[in-house]
Amino acid sequence: MIRIGTVGTNWITQQLVEAVALSKRYTLAGVYSRHQETADAFAQKNQAEKSYTDYETMLDQANLDVVYIASPNSLHFKQAMAAIDRDISIIVEKPAFSNRREMAAIMAELKQHPAVKYFEAARHVHTPNFKAISKALMALPTVQGAALTYMKYSSRYDKVLDGEQPNVFTKEFSGGALQDLGVYPIYLAIALFGQPENVAFFPTIIVTGADGKGLAMLRYGDFDVTVNFGKTSNSYALSEIYGLKETITIDSAGELTHVEERDASGQATDLSAAELANPMLPEAEDFARVLEAPDDKQNVADYQRWLQWSLTVNQVLFDLRVSANLKFPADQH
Amino acid sequence: MIRIGTVGTNWITQQLVEAVALSKRYTLAGVYSRHQETADAFAQKNQAEKSYTDYETMLDQANLDVVYIASPNSLHFKQAMAAIDRDISIIVEKPAFSNRREMAAIMAELKQHPAVKYFEAARHVHTPNFKAISKALMALPTVQGAALTYMKYSSRYDKVLDGEQPNVFTKEFSGGALQDLGVYPIYLAIALFGQPENVAFFPTIIVTGADGKGLAMLRYGDFDVTVNFGKTSNSYALSEIYGLKETITIDSAGELTHVEERDASGQATDLSAAELANPMLPEAEDFARVLEAPDDKQNVADYQRWLQWSLTVNQVLFDLRVSANLKFPADQH
Repeated sequence: MIRIGTVGTNWITQQLVEAVALSKRYTLAGVYSRHQETADAFAQKNQAEKSYTDYETMLDQANLDVVYIASPNSLHFKQAMAAIDRDISIIVEKPAFSNRREMAAIMAELKQHPAVKYFEAARHVHTPNFKAISKALMALPTVQGAALTYMKYSSRYDKVLDGEQPNVFTKEFSGGALQDLGVYPIYLAIALFGQPENVAFFPTIIVTGADGKGLAMLRYGDFDVTVNFGKTSNSYALSEIYGLKETITIDSAGELTHVEERDASGQATDLSAAELANPMLPEAEDFARVLEAPDDKQNVADYQRWLQWSLTVNQVLFDLRVSANLKFPADQH
Repeated sequence: MIRIGTVGTNWITQQLVEAVALSKRYTLAGVYSRHQETADAFAQKNQAEKSYTDYETMLDQANLDVVYIASPNSLHFKQAMAAIDRDISIIVEKPAFSNRREMAAIMAELKQHPAVKYFEAARHVHTPNFKAISKALMALPTVQGAALTYMKYSSRYDKVLDGEQPNVFTKEFSGGALQDLGVYPIYLAIALFGQPENVAFFPTIIVTGADGKGLAMLRYGDFDVTVNFGKTSNSYALSEIYGLKETITIDSAGELTHVEERDASGQATDLSAAELANPMLPEAEDFARVLEAPDDKQNVADYQRWLQWSLTVNQVLFDLRVSANLKFPADQH
């Protein structure tokens, strides 16, 4: 069994913990939270071996194979470095790192610790529906781009309107809509189409100074991918990939729960796989597979592909912010 | 009865002729086509008084109150000037004129002929569903922008792929996706939100040198309107206007046949008016109303509003082309 530790106790960590339990390939060896009460409650709810209020103590004492990091974005880097230093593999919630400099330092550190694996927790690109989209894309006669949308009103925007500054809406925690929701459709675009030739970003800046919504253009020379995302309003629009007369439609570029292909006449064929017991189960299983058999040829190839996606997404998110002059304090360290 | 003449014999002229017949306020006094056979067939089918193969002869002899111009875009200007010179009002298919210089010349000519009315045939912004959208927009607690889509595969793109150069896909005829389909969602945006502060255009240029599809950004300071359009692929995505938690959804930013409002919980309310007998009937009736009673206070106000929309659309289409360095031969005259 893979001994996993967790950082963070919100809904996404809860979902990951349930996914690793479903996979039956991990033991929850430790959970970390700054506050004893929160750590204990989370440990008890999920039958963890032990709870910790000091992160490095957990790394030193819990005998972990891998740590899952779902803290505010700006904290990922330091927590990831501390784990790699101790030869503990890392699963980092997307976006894993705030900028290119952080990513470069992580890659250099990984070179010093060749047994350590780094995974970015981009759950949707590990799902059967992502594979269905990839397969349908390959069968298109031509690709004329895509329009991807992921836009959900965040209850924390109510707090912003009440004058508060929740972490996910601040630059101090490397937050904003691009980092929080935009990363999903951008990950999808890069996993499907690779690295864009150039990018442009049109953010809508809210009172906290972060982007509340925005449009990102990923330009591939032959075609464009337009990415529409936001946390201050709700969208019901399909995401689409354009063939010639054929169109692949996706319910949402973040959820990927429903995928169809429309033929030239508009007739729809459902390409969706069965509903998942837990949307994070496929990534939990993919990461377990690599951790259990890191030298398996397929696992080596998959790991390298995921690493490349992560590097490209990091670069694109950074380039998008540069194009809109949107800086994080984390960029100045 | 308003004596109307027509220029062009394709589907859009046929639809206009049927709309004016339904309105019972026009007489089809003349139809013009370069070819005798085409002109005769169109005249006979629609019980026109007379057919013409010379445009100026029709203007001089048919005793017209108004002429409807649906020739290739690059020909509109000269045909419109010839009509205004003879104190004949004009209904010009959108986009009416290729650039700002043409529009400025038309406006100067109209000043010399104060009895002449100029209408741009933007059918969708005259419909009850447009009014339903406007009304729902006014009731939103805030406006956080819109994403408008109009994308339909054109059978004439088959011809382009076969090596031909159909007019609508050439710069020589001031064609391309922006002029042909993009003008609909851009008209909608300008009629709803007014003149944008600045614009950007990301076209996909096809083998003819014209844009086959593209994304236009209309930036309003507080919010953005993103406009996704094309003639080389098919979209099934909703167009949307974002309130706070509320969203107005539109089946297509060109057709406006189905309009809904979703509340904070996602519950939809249908705002659509009854289906139209002919999508051009509301504009035919609106224009007849102004031609019949040009001094009526409401008519004066409506006419001025439509004129302002037309001027702004002309400017925005031109600015979009400039931003993407997409020039027409008509720009150099």
